[in-house]
Amino acid sequence: TGPMRETKVVPRVREIMDTRVVAVTEDEPISTAAAKLLKGETNHLPVLNGDGQLVGIVTTYDVTKAVGSTRDLTVVRDIMTRRVVRTTPEEAVDIAAQKLERHNISALPVVDPANRVIGMLSAIDLGKLLGGRWQA
Amino acid sequence: TGPMRETKVVPRVREIMDTRVVAVTEDEPISTAAAKLLKGETNHLPVLNGDGQLVGIVTTYDVTKAVGSTRDLTVVRDIMTRRVVRTTPEEAVDIAAQKLERHNISALPVVDPANRVIGMLSAIDLGKLLGGRWQA
Ligand SMILES: C[S@@+](CC[C@H](N)C(=O)[O-])C[C@H]1O[C@@H](n2cnc3c(N)ncnc32)[C@H](O)[C@@H]1O
Repeated sequence: TGPMRETKVVPRVREIMDTRVVAVTEDEPISTAAAKLLKGETNHLPVLNGDGQLVGIVTTYDVTKAVGSTRDLTVVRDIMTRRVVRTTPEEAVDIAAQKLERHNISALPVVDPANRVIGMLSAIDLGKLLGGRWQA
Repeated sequence: TGPMRETKVVPRVREIMDTRVVAVTEDEPISTAAAKLLKGETNHLPVLNGDGQLVGIVTTYDVTKAVGSTRDLTVVRDIMTRRVVRTTPEEAVDIAAQKLERHNISALPVVDPANRVIGMLSAIDLGKLLGGRWQA
């Protein structure tokens, strides 16, 4: 049989993800997460356990909880989102884009089979790929 | 002379802005701003002075400063952004969209001639108008 002809090549997450990952561990003080967010390189910090595996995610929204709440919130574990929507390097970018839209979020950690974070995929990365522009 | 034919009608900010504005005053404690942001209706709080005029804007990013900084930050004035990019009800939406894009922000306060906030215009409002969707 001859070679199959590919009618459409959908790029994979691996091709556009950002591999410079800034992360925190679940036991770090919230102020450490805040300082990392204020460096301005990202608004999404993946949270790792002692084995380096993804257990949560933290944004400026979650840090705001530490200020707006009357509860005693001190470490990252107290404020992180535990059900992390994630992607893999092999996932097609349109599937990843759907995840962002459906969950109303703007970035996904990219994990390997051992649940280690090997990159981040943001709406901005996707926007660049899709050449999206505001037009009236 | 006959009536002029309009070749293109660009919508105005007034037609798509959100008039349910949640604001803070510059003297309120940062925790009050945090609590308002966590209600989840907006990530952008316009900051008003004693005369009800726009003097700043606060997001979860600014509240994060209160946690990540070693300085003593207590009231909204200490963390707000003072140079507020703004729009007016009569501005064309494509001009407002350009402001968002150019300044890399996601919402603009809409002010009247007395510098009072009469609405908010967000990227989401614009996205709805433009029918923008992620498509690969
Ligand atoms: C619902 S979003 C709204 C704020 C903003 N629109 C955004 O996209 O980040 C804020 C919440 O989403 C959570 N979040 C962000 N990325 C996430 C992801 N990949 N999986 C699960 N939750 C996530 C954050 O922890 C935060 O509590």
